[in-house]
Amino acid sequence: MHFTSERHLDDGVREREFTLGEIPGIVWTPASASASATASAPVPLILLGHPPLGLGRMYPRLVARAKGAAAEGFASATIELPGSGDRPRRPALDQARAELRRVMEAGEPVSDEVVDALVLPLVEEAVPEWRAALDALLSLPEIDGPVGYSGGIISVGIRLAVVEPRIAAAGLFAGSLVPRVMFEEARQVTIPLHVLLQWDDEGNDRQAALNLFDAFGSEEKTLHANMGGHSGVPQHAGDAANRFFTRHLRAAAPSRTP
Amino acid sequence: MHFTSERHLDDGVREREFTLGEIPGIVWTPASASASATASAPVPLILLGHPPLGLGRMYPRLVARAKGAAAEGFASATIELPGSGDRPRRPALDQARAELRRVMEAGEPVSDEVVDALVLPLVEEAVPEWRAALDALLSLPEIDGPVGYSGGIISVGIRLAVVEPRIAAAGLFAGSLVPRVMFEEARQVTIPLHVLLQWDDEGNDRQAALNLFDAFGSEEKTLHANMGGHSGVPQHAGDAANRFFTRHLRAAAPSRTP
Repeated sequence: MHFTSERHLDDGVREREFTLGEIPGIVWTPASASASATASAPVPLILLGHPPLGLGRMYPRLVARAKGAAAEGFASATIELPGSGDRPRRPALDQARAELRRVMEAGEPVSDEVVDALVLPLVEEAVPEWRAALDALLSLPEIDGPVGYSGGIISVGIRLAVVEPRIAAAGLFAGSLVPRVMFEEARQVTIPLHVLLQWDDEGNDRQAALNLFDAFGSEEKTLHANMGGHSGVPQHAGDAANRFFTRHLRAAAPSRTP
Repeated sequence: MHFTSERHLDDGVREREFTLGEIPGIVWTPASASASATASAPVPLILLGHPPLGLGRMYPRLVARAKGAAAEGFASATIELPGSGDRPRRPALDQARAELRRVMEAGEPVSDEVVDALVLPLVEEAVPEWRAALDALLSLPEIDGPVGYSGGIISVGIRLAVVEPRIAAAGLFAGSLVPRVMFEEARQVTIPLHVLLQWDDEGNDRQAALNLFDAFGSEEKTLHANMGGHSGVPQHAGDAANRFFTRHLRAAAPSRTP
């Protein structure tokens, strides 16, 4: 992990860009944690997932979420997805995306093949990268577990929740471009889940999202459905997601002390 | 409105029993409001709905909800439902309830006729009583609008939300014993709604509850679904409902000042 820039945002949040091998990323730590790593206790971390539109385009939304997390005393971090932003293009992903666009513009149903081609390679490639980022981030003195995962491609969140034991809670954004195989994987998820659903999401099939929520194996899972389209998540829904993490990452922290 | 008893609960909440004609009720005011009506501003009110099991049997849950509301600075109040508790029996209601029990024990589907016979007379009779209680409660110096309605028989909440303009926000508990005619009425509801759904509620049809949520005409409506059966609502869901009322009853208050 190599830091390439550092600045302090207006509310004292420390923002550092880094690269992890070829992968760019950003880590935000709250003022409390960045004042002095030795004087203040390390804080839990929330990984900020995002759609494959590039960190540059996603930055305004990511920094708003990072500030919200910092206000609750959490560090947060994100990395670029494979084939997005400044990372090398993945022709197969570009082709799958073009095919999805074509199908949707033609008003045809989106086939399992299109969804699989679009999502599964991303999951396969991204999840090990996020785990490597987790190794690096948890080695920083300002950050300690437990770790939460929030938002982004829900299939990436599902796979991470299944394979990465350091992730203690996940806040997921219900999407319907979910490969069938991920429904099976969802049954293996056991960590507490907080699932956001936009009731009139133009890009999502509501019933598929409800079915996916039903499939999750977690004993504690909550669905928060709000009115409006994909980008219309109300402020109070973001606040509720932060409280979910506070409940689970704060409560879990003491149990890590031997 | 005739007060029949008064006491202070351990956290300073003032609890007064009253009768309104023949109807018993309870009103709770937070310590801030009860210290001196002239020195402190009147507080918003939340009407606490409940199932037709009698105020005596419901008291432990009601007082817990009243304390939660008081902690957020709200007064709360409830009245006995027709045919429940110490009020005169309603043979037709008792018969409808016996028929529902018989049908459910026999594992038969619950017909529209059974649901209508059970719920519609309650709605017809209870709603004018709650409105009369509202008149009396809003005449108390410690209480002022806006008013919220919370929980209980969802059809009573729907009717109140449609016909009673003083109710500015409602927190409803999704139930499936909802007469078909109430789905039509739900489309006329326009106030902000916060709907709780227990995902594995043994007495509720989940799809019917989701359909009812979909039917509400409100521009702002939120569904919070949690795991577990009818009585397993987690603490954080109650907290979220209180925050919903804080958002809507507090924010609305200034607009009432000319």
